[in-house]
Amino acid sequence: MTGKQRIPPRSGTAFELGKGQRLTVIDPEGAQVSDLLAYGLDDVREVISNGRTFDYEQTIKLTAGNTLWSNRSNGMLKIVEDTAGTHDFLLTPCSTATFKHFYPDKPVHRGCFGNLAEALSPWGIGEDDIPCAFNVFMNVPVDGSSGRLSVETPPSEAGDRVVFEALMDCVIGLTACSAYASNGGSFKPIDYRID
Amino acid sequence: MTGKQRIPPRSGTAFELGKGQRLTVIDPEGAQVSDLLAYGLDDVREVISNGRTFDYEQTIKLTAGNTLWSNRSNGMLKIVEDTAGTHDFLLTPCSTATFKHFYPDKPVHRGCFGNLAEALSPWGIGEDDIPCAFNVFMNVPVDGSSGRLSVETPPSEAGDRVVFEALMDCVIGLTACSAYASNGGSFKPIDYRID
Repeated sequence: MTGKQRIPPRSGTAFELGKGQRLTVIDPEGAQVSDLLAYGLDDVREVISNGRTFDYEQTIKLTAGNTLWSNRSNGMLKIVEDTAGTHDFLLTPCSTATFKHFYPDKPVHRGCFGNLAEALSPWGIGEDDIPCAFNVFMNVPVDGSSGRLSVETPPSEAGDRVVFEALMDCVIGLTACSAYASNGGSFKPIDYRID
Repeated sequence: MTGKQRIPPRSGTAFELGKGQRLTVIDPEGAQVSDLLAYGLDDVREVISNGRTFDYEQTIKLTAGNTLWSNRSNGMLKIVEDTAGTHDFLLTPCSTATFKHFYPDKPVHRGCFGNLAEALSPWGIGEDDIPCAFNVFMNVPVDGSSGRLSVETPPSEAGDRVVFEALMDCVIGLTACSAYASNGGSFKPIDYRID
Protein backbone atom coordinates (compact mmCIF):
# COMPACT_ATOMS: atom_id res chain seq x y z
CA MET A 1 0.00 0.00 0.00
CA THR A 2 1.61 3.23 -1.20
CA GLY A 3 -0.87 5.80 0.06
CA LYS A 4 -2.84 8.05 -2.18
CA GLN A 5 -0.98 9.83 -4.98
CA ARG A 6 -2.21 12.88 -6.88
CA ILE A 7 -1.83 13.47 -10.64
CA PRO A 8 -1.97 17.25 -11.16
CA PRO A 9 -4.36 18.67 -13.80
CA ARG A 10 -3.27 18.09 -17.42
CA SER A 11 -0.41 15.75 -16.52
CA GLY A 12 0.35 12.04 -16.38
CA THR A 13 2.42 9.41 -14.66
CA ALA A 14 3.52 5.80 -15.05
CA PHE A 15 4.39 3.00 -12.61
CA GLU A 16 4.61 -0.75 -12.31
CA LEU A 17 1.70 -2.79 -10.96
CA GLY A 18 2.50 -6.36 -9.93
CA LYS A 19 0.20 -9.29 -10.60
CA GLY A 20 -2.43 -9.39 -7.86
CA GLN A 21 -1.95 -5.75 -6.87
CA ARG A 22 -4.88 -3.38 -7.02
CA LEU A 23 -4.96 0.06 -8.58
CA THR A 24 -7.69 2.44 -7.42
CA VAL A 25 -8.37 5.44 -9.67
CA ILE A 26 -10.30 8.18 -7.90
CA ASP A 27 -12.01 11.28 -9.27
CA PRO A 28 -11.44 13.62 -6.30
CA GLU A 29 -13.57 16.55 -7.51
CA GLY A 30 -15.99 14.87 -9.94
CA ALA A 31 -16.47 15.06 -13.74
CA GLN A 32 -12.81 14.42 -14.57
CA VAL A 33 -11.34 11.80 -16.93
CA SER A 34 -8.23 9.63 -16.50
CA ASP A 35 -6.70 7.85 -19.50
CA LEU A 36 -5.31 4.47 -18.47
CA LEU A 37 -2.86 2.33 -20.46
CA ALA A 38 -1.43 -1.06 -19.48
CA TYR A 39 1.58 -2.85 -20.96
CA GLY A 40 3.13 -6.20 -20.10
CA LEU A 41 6.11 -5.63 -17.81
CA ASP A 42 7.95 -8.63 -19.28
CA ASP A 43 7.38 -7.40 -22.84
CA VAL A 44 5.86 -3.99 -23.44
CA ARG A 45 4.78 -5.04 -26.94
CA GLU A 46 1.85 -6.64 -25.10
CA VAL A 47 -0.70 -3.89 -24.49
CA ILE A 48 -4.37 -3.40 -23.68
CA SER A 49 -6.60 -3.70 -26.73
CA ASN A 50 -10.07 -2.25 -27.00
CA GLY A 51 -10.88 -4.64 -29.89
CA ARG A 52 -9.88 -7.80 -28.05
CA THR A 53 -11.75 -6.53 -24.96
CA PHE A 54 -14.94 -5.73 -26.89
CA ASP A 55 -14.76 -9.17 -28.51
CA TYR A 56 -14.23 -11.20 -25.32
CA GLU A 57 -16.52 -9.10 -23.12
CA GLN A 58 -19.20 -8.67 -25.82
CA THR A 59 -19.84 -5.08 -24.78
CA ILE A 60 -18.37 -1.63 -25.29
CA LYS A 61 -19.43 -0.59 -21.76
CA LEU A 62 -16.95 -2.04 -19.29
CA THR A 63 -17.59 -2.03 -15.55
CA ALA A 64 -17.11 -4.20 -12.44
CA GLY A 65 -16.74 -7.85 -13.47
CA ASN A 66 -15.26 -7.06 -16.89
CA THR A 67 -11.64 -7.70 -17.84
CA LEU A 68 -9.40 -5.52 -20.02
CA TRP A 69 -7.62 -7.84 -22.49
CA SER A 70 -4.32 -7.48 -24.30
CA ASN A 71 -3.53 -7.62 -28.01
CA ARG A 72 -2.20 -11.15 -27.27
CA SER A 73 -5.54 -12.29 -25.84
CA ASN A 74 -4.41 -12.33 -22.22
CA GLY A 75 -6.40 -10.73 -19.42
CA MET A 76 -4.45 -7.73 -18.07
CA LEU A 77 -6.69 -5.89 -15.62
CA LYS A 78 -9.92 -6.95 -14.01
CA ILE A 79 -12.35 -4.27 -12.88
CA VAL A 80 -13.27 -5.37 -9.37
CA GLU A 81 -15.12 -2.27 -8.17
CA ASP A 82 -16.72 0.66 -9.98
CA THR A 83 -18.78 3.35 -8.29
CA ALA A 84 -19.08 5.47 -11.47
CA GLY A 85 -20.19 3.01 -14.16
CA THR A 86 -19.46 5.28 -17.12
CA HIS A 87 -16.16 4.92 -18.98
CA ASP A 88 -14.94 4.92 -22.57
CA PHE A 89 -12.74 2.51 -24.49
CA LEU A 90 -13.47 3.81 -28.01
CA LEU A 91 -11.20 6.83 -28.24
CA THR A 92 -7.48 7.48 -28.37
CA PRO A 93 -5.80 9.94 -25.97
CA CYS A 94 -6.09 13.65 -26.76
CA SER A 95 -2.96 14.99 -28.47
CA THR A 96 -1.47 18.01 -30.20
CA ALA A 97 -3.31 16.94 -33.35
CA THR A 98 -6.69 16.51 -31.65
CA PHE A 99 -6.34 19.88 -29.90
CA LYS A 100 -5.73 21.56 -33.28
CA HIS A 101 -8.68 19.68 -34.79
CA PHE A 102 -11.30 20.12 -32.09
CA TYR A 103 -10.21 23.37 -30.42
CA PRO A 104 -8.71 25.50 -33.22
CA ASP A 105 -9.23 28.70 -31.20
CA LYS A 106 -7.59 27.41 -28.02
CA PRO A 107 -3.92 26.98 -27.08
CA VAL A 108 -2.51 23.65 -28.27
CA HIS A 109 -1.61 21.17 -25.54
CA ARG A 110 0.31 17.89 -25.92
CA GLY A 111 -2.60 16.25 -24.15
CA CYS A 112 -2.83 12.85 -22.52
CA PHE A 113 -0.99 11.43 -25.54
CA GLY A 114 2.11 13.55 -24.94
CA ASN A 115 1.87 13.12 -21.17
CA LEU A 116 1.65 9.32 -21.51
CA ALA A 117 4.51 9.13 -24.01
CA GLU A 118 6.81 11.04 -21.66
CA ALA A 119 5.77 9.12 -18.55
CA LEU A 120 6.15 5.74 -20.29
CA SER A 121 9.45 6.48 -22.03
CA PRO A 122 11.60 4.97 -19.22
CA TRP A 123 10.13 1.57 -20.16
CA GLY A 124 10.98 2.03 -23.84
CA ILE A 125 7.38 2.83 -24.78
CA GLY A 126 7.02 5.51 -27.46
CA GLU A 127 4.22 7.43 -29.16
CA ASP A 128 3.59 4.74 -31.79
CA ASP A 129 3.06 2.21 -28.99
CA ILE A 130 0.06 4.11 -27.60
CA PRO A 131 -3.28 2.51 -28.54
CA CYS A 132 -6.79 3.46 -27.45
CA ALA A 133 -6.71 4.08 -23.73
CA PHE A 134 -9.28 2.89 -21.23
CA ASN A 135 -10.67 6.31 -20.43
CA VAL A 136 -11.83 6.08 -16.83
CA PHE A 137 -14.94 8.19 -16.08
CA MET A 138 -15.13 9.41 -19.72
CA ASN A 139 -18.67 9.82 -21.03
CA VAL A 140 -19.02 8.95 -24.72
CA PRO A 141 -22.61 7.99 -25.49
CA VAL A 142 -23.11 6.04 -28.73
CA ASP A 143 -26.34 5.95 -30.72
CA GLY A 144 -26.54 2.27 -31.64
CA SER A 145 -28.75 2.98 -34.62
CA SER A 146 -26.79 5.77 -36.35
CA GLY A 147 -23.42 4.97 -34.81
CA ARG A 148 -22.95 8.64 -33.84
CA LEU A 149 -20.97 9.35 -30.72
CA SER A 150 -20.34 12.47 -28.69
CA VAL A 151 -18.07 13.44 -25.83
CA GLU A 152 -20.13 14.65 -22.86
CA THR A 153 -19.42 15.79 -19.31
CA PRO A 154 -18.67 12.77 -17.11
CA PRO A 155 -21.39 11.93 -14.58
CA SER A 156 -18.76 10.92 -11.99
CA GLU A 157 -19.04 12.63 -8.62
CA ALA A 158 -16.34 13.59 -6.15
CA GLY A 159 -14.92 10.42 -4.63
CA ASP A 160 -16.05 8.04 -7.35
CA ARG A 161 -13.50 5.29 -7.91
CA VAL A 162 -12.65 2.29 -10.03
CA VAL A 163 -10.52 -0.56 -8.70
CA PHE A 164 -8.46 -2.65 -11.13
CA GLU A 165 -6.74 -5.90 -10.19
CA ALA A 166 -3.64 -6.77 -12.22
CA LEU A 167 -3.85 -10.21 -13.84
CA MET A 168 -0.20 -9.97 -14.92
CA ASP A 169 2.78 -7.76 -14.08
CA CYS A 170 2.03 -4.47 -15.83
CA VAL A 171 3.41 -1.04 -16.62
CA ILE A 172 0.56 1.44 -16.15
CA GLY A 173 0.22 4.89 -17.71
CA LEU A 174 -2.35 7.19 -16.08
CA THR A 175 -3.38 10.80 -16.65
CA ALA A 176 -5.54 13.63 -15.45
CA CYS A 177 -7.11 14.50 -18.79
CA SER A 178 -6.19 17.69 -20.64
CA ALA A 179 -9.04 18.02 -23.15
CA TYR A 180 -11.88 20.49 -22.83
CA ALA A 181 -14.79 18.32 -23.95
CA SER A 182 -13.98 15.21 -21.94
CA ASN A 183 -14.14 16.86 -18.53
CA GLY A 184 -16.76 19.54 -19.03
CA GLY A 185 -14.25 22.30 -19.73
CA SER A 186 -12.37 22.38 -16.45
CA PHE A 187 -9.07 20.76 -15.58
CA LYS A 188 -8.88 18.78 -12.40
CA PRO A 189 -6.53 16.32 -10.73
CA ILE A 190 -6.88 12.54 -10.49
CA ASP A 191 -5.92 10.50 -7.44
CA TYR A 192 -4.77 6.91 -7.36
CA ARG A 193 -3.66 4.32 -4.88
CA ILE A 194 -1.87 0.99 -5.16
CA ASP A 195 -2.69 -1.79 -2.67
CA MET B 1 -5.74 -1.19 -63.10
CA THR B 2 -4.69 -4.71 -62.17
CA GLY B 3 -7.87 -6.66 -62.93
CA LYS B 4 -9.90 -8.44 -60.32
CA GLN B 5 -8.05 -10.66 -57.85
CA ARG B 6 -9.59 -13.38 -55.69
CA ILE B 7 -8.72 -14.11 -52.05
CA PRO B 8 -9.63 -17.77 -51.41
CA PRO B 9 -11.80 -18.64 -48.38
CA ARG B 10 -10.00 -18.41 -45.01
CA SER B 11 -6.88 -16.77 -46.43
CA GLY B 12 -5.32 -13.33 -46.78
CA THR B 13 -3.02 -11.23 -48.90
CA ALA B 14 -1.07 -7.96 -48.78
CA PHE B 15 -0.02 -5.40 -51.37
CA GLU B 16 1.02 -1.79 -51.79
CA LEU B 17 -1.53 0.89 -52.66
CA GLY B 18 -0.12 4.19 -53.90
CA LYS B 19 -1.53 7.58 -52.90
CA GLY B 20 -4.52 8.32 -55.15
CA GLN B 21 -5.06 4.69 -56.15
CA ARG B 22 -8.40 3.07 -55.43
CA LEU B 23 -8.98 -0.30 -53.81
CA THR B 24 -12.35 -1.95 -54.45
CA VAL B 25 -13.29 -4.77 -52.03
CA ILE B 26 -16.09 -6.96 -53.39
CA ASP B 27 -18.21 -9.61 -51.69
CA PRO B 28 -18.71 -11.97 -54.65
CA GLU B 29 -21.23 -14.35 -53.06
CA GLY B 30 -22.72 -12.20 -50.26
CA ALA B 31 -22.58 -12.35 -46.45
CA GLN B 32 -18.78 -12.58 -46.25
CA VAL B 33 -16.36 -10.42 -44.25
CA SER B 34 -12.96 -9.01 -45.25
CA ASP B 35 -10.57 -7.70 -42.59
CA LEU B 36 -8.63 -4.70 -43.90
CA LEU B 37 -5.44 -3.23 -42.41
CA ALA B 38 -3.47 -0.24 -43.71
CA TYR B 39 0.10 0.78 -42.80
CA GLY B 40 2.20 3.70 -43.99
CA LEU B 41 4.52 2.49 -46.75
CA ASP B 42 7.23 4.96 -45.67
CA ASP B 43 7.01 3.82 -42.04
CA VAL B 44 4.88 0.84 -41.11
CA ARG B 45 4.68 2.05 -37.50
CA GLU B 46 1.94 4.32 -38.84
CA VAL B 47 -1.24 2.23 -38.95
CA ILE B 48 -5.01 2.63 -39.10
CA SER B 49 -6.55 3.37 -35.72
CA ASN B 50 -10.17 2.75 -34.82
CA GLY B 51 -9.89 5.18 -31.92
CA ARG B 52 -8.52 8.08 -33.96
CA THR B 53 -11.13 7.35 -36.64
CA PHE B 54 -14.04 7.26 -34.17
CA ASP B 55 -12.80 10.54 -32.69
CA TYR B 56 -12.37 12.46 -35.96
CA GLU B 57 -15.44 10.99 -37.70
CA GLN B 58 -17.63 11.14 -34.55
CA THR B 59 -19.25 7.82 -35.40
CA ILE B 60 -18.53 4.10 -35.06
CA LYS B 61 -20.40 3.41 -38.35
CA LEU B 62 -18.13 4.29 -41.24
CA THR B 63 -19.40 4.51 -44.82
CA ALA B 64 -18.99 6.57 -48.00
CA GLY B 65 -17.60 10.01 -47.13
CA ASN B 66 -15.77 8.84 -44.01
CA THR B 67 -11.99 8.60 -43.70
CA LEU B 68 -9.98 5.93 -41.89
CA TRP B 69 -7.31 7.71 -39.81
CA SER B 70 -3.92 6.58 -38.59
CA ASN B 71 -2.47 6.45 -35.07
CA ARG B 72 -0.52 9.59 -36.10
CA SER B 73 -3.72 11.51 -36.95
CA ASN B 74 -3.25 11.35 -40.73
CA GLY B 75 -6.01 10.31 -43.12
CA MET B 76 -5.05 6.97 -44.72
CA LEU B 77 -8.05 5.74 -46.71
CA LYS B 78 -11.20 7.56 -47.75
CA ILE B 79 -14.33 5.53 -48.38
CA VAL B 80 -15.57 6.89 -51.71
CA GLU B 81 -18.26 4.32 -52.52
CA ASP B 82 -20.15 1.79 -50.39
CA THR B 83 -23.05 -0.32 -51.64
CA ALA B 84 -23.26 -2.38 -48.42
CA GLY B 85 -23.31 0.21 -45.64
CA THR B 86 -22.60 -2.22 -42.79
CA HIS B 87 -19.04 -2.65 -41.53
CA ASP B 88 -17.26 -3.01 -38.21
CA PHE B 89 -14.25 -1.21 -36.74
CA LEU B 90 -14.65 -2.37 -33.12
CA LEU B 91 -13.13 -5.84 -33.23
CA THR B 92 -9.69 -7.33 -33.72
CA PRO B 93 -9.07 -10.07 -36.33
CA CYS B 94 -10.07 -13.63 -35.43
CA SER B 95 -7.08 -15.68 -34.25
CA THR B 96 -6.05 -19.00 -32.74
CA ALA B 97 -7.02 -17.60 -29.34
CA THR B 98 -10.45 -16.37 -30.45
CA PHE B 99 -11.19 -19.69 -32.16
CA LYS B 100 -10.41 -21.52 -28.90
CA HIS B 101 -12.54 -19.06 -26.95
CA PHE B 102 -15.62 -18.82 -29.15
CA TYR B 103 -15.62 -22.22 -30.91
CA PRO B 104 -14.19 -24.69 -28.36
CA ASP B 105 -15.77 -27.63 -30.21
CA LYS B 106 -14.46 -26.70 -33.67
CA PRO B 107 -10.99 -27.09 -35.22
CA VAL B 108 -8.67 -24.20 -34.37
CA HIS B 109 -7.72 -21.94 -37.27
CA ARG B 110 -5.06 -19.22 -37.29
CA GLY B 111 -7.79 -16.91 -38.55
CA CYS B 112 -7.48 -13.50 -40.18
CA PHE B 113 -4.88 -12.62 -37.55
CA GLY B 114 -2.51 -15.39 -38.64
CA ASN B 115 -3.27 -14.82 -42.31
CA LEU B 116 -2.56 -11.09 -42.01
CA ALA B 117 0.66 -11.61 -40.05
CA GLU B 118 2.01 -13.97 -42.72
CA ALA B 119 0.92 -11.79 -45.63
CA LEU B 120 2.37 -8.62 -44.06
CA SER B 121 5.67 -10.14 -42.91
CA PRO B 122 7.57 -9.10 -46.08
CA TRP B 123 7.11 -5.48 -44.98
CA GLY B 124 8.45 -6.19 -41.49
CA ILE B 125 5.00 -6.16 -39.92
CA GLY B 126 4.47 -8.75 -37.17
CA GLU B 127 1.66 -10.01 -34.96
CA ASP B 128 2.13 -7.31 -32.32
CA ASP B 129 1.72 -4.66 -35.04
CA ILE B 130 -1.83 -5.78 -35.85
CA PRO B 131 -4.49 -3.46 -34.37
CA CYS B 132 -8.27 -3.55 -34.83
CA ALA B 133 -8.97 -4.12 -38.51
CA PHE B 134 -11.58 -2.29 -40.53
CA ASN B 135 -13.86 -5.29 -41.01
CA VAL B 136 -15.52 -4.75 -44.37
CA PHE B 137 -19.13 -6.06 -44.54
CA MET B 138 -18.96 -7.26 -40.88
CA ASN B 139 -22.21 -6.88 -38.97
CA VAL B 140 -21.72 -6.01 -35.30
CA PRO B 141 -24.81 -4.28 -33.95
CA VAL B 142 -24.28 -2.34 -30.72
CA ASP B 143 -27.00 -1.54 -28.20
CA GLY B 144 -26.20 2.06 -27.33
CA SER B 145 -27.95 1.83 -24.01
CA SER B 146 -26.44 -1.38 -22.58
CA GLY B 147 -23.29 -1.35 -24.70
CA ARG B 148 -23.86 -5.00 -25.65
CA LEU B 149 -22.64 -6.08 -29.06
CA SER B 150 -23.12 -9.23 -31.10
CA VAL B 151 -21.65 -10.64 -34.30
CA GLU B 152 -24.41 -11.28 -36.83
CA THR B 153 -24.62 -12.48 -40.44
CA PRO B 154 -23.59 -9.67 -42.80
CA PRO B 155 -26.43 -8.17 -44.84
CA SER B 156 -24.11 -7.76 -47.86
CA GLU B 157 -25.37 -9.28 -51.10
CA ALA B 158 -23.42 -10.80 -53.98
CA GLY B 159 -21.60 -8.02 -55.78
CA ASP B 160 -21.66 -5.49 -52.95
CA ARG B 161 -18.49 -3.41 -52.88
CA VAL B 162 -16.62 -0.72 -51.00
CA VAL B 163 -14.15 1.58 -52.75
CA PHE B 164 -11.26 3.09 -50.74
CA GLU B 165 -9.03 5.88 -52.04
CA ALA B 166 -5.52 5.97 -50.60
CA LEU B 167 -4.64 9.34 -49.03
CA MET B 168 -1.00 8.23 -48.59
CA ASP B 169 1.18 5.41 -49.89
CA CYS B 170 0.02 2.35 -47.98
CA VAL B 171 0.68 -1.31 -47.37
CA ILE B 172 -2.70 -3.06 -47.28
CA GLY B 173 -3.55 -6.38 -45.61
CA LEU B 174 -6.83 -7.99 -46.72
CA THR B 175 -8.55 -11.28 -45.90
CA ALA B 176 -11.48 -13.51 -46.66
CA CYS B 177 -12.61 -14.07 -43.08
CA SER B 178 -12.15 -17.42 -41.35
CA ALA B 179 -14.51 -17.14 -38.39
CA TYR B 180 -17.87 -18.88 -38.16
CA ALA B 181 -19.96 -16.12 -36.62
CA SER B 182 -18.81 -13.25 -38.79
CA ASN B 183 -19.95 -14.76 -42.09
CA GLY B 184 -23.00 -16.75 -41.10
CA GLY B 185 -21.09 -20.03 -40.76
CA SER B 186 -19.88 -20.47 -44.33
CA PHE B 187 -16.47 -19.64 -45.77
CA LYS B 188 -16.40 -17.69 -48.99
CA PRO B 189 -13.86 -15.80 -51.08
CA ILE B 190 -13.37 -12.04 -51.34
CA ASP B 191 -12.52 -10.23 -54.57
CA TYR B 192 -10.59 -6.98 -54.89
CA ARG B 193 -9.36 -4.68 -57.58
CA ILE B 194 -6.81 -1.85 -57.68
CA ASP B 195 -7.43 1.08 -60.05
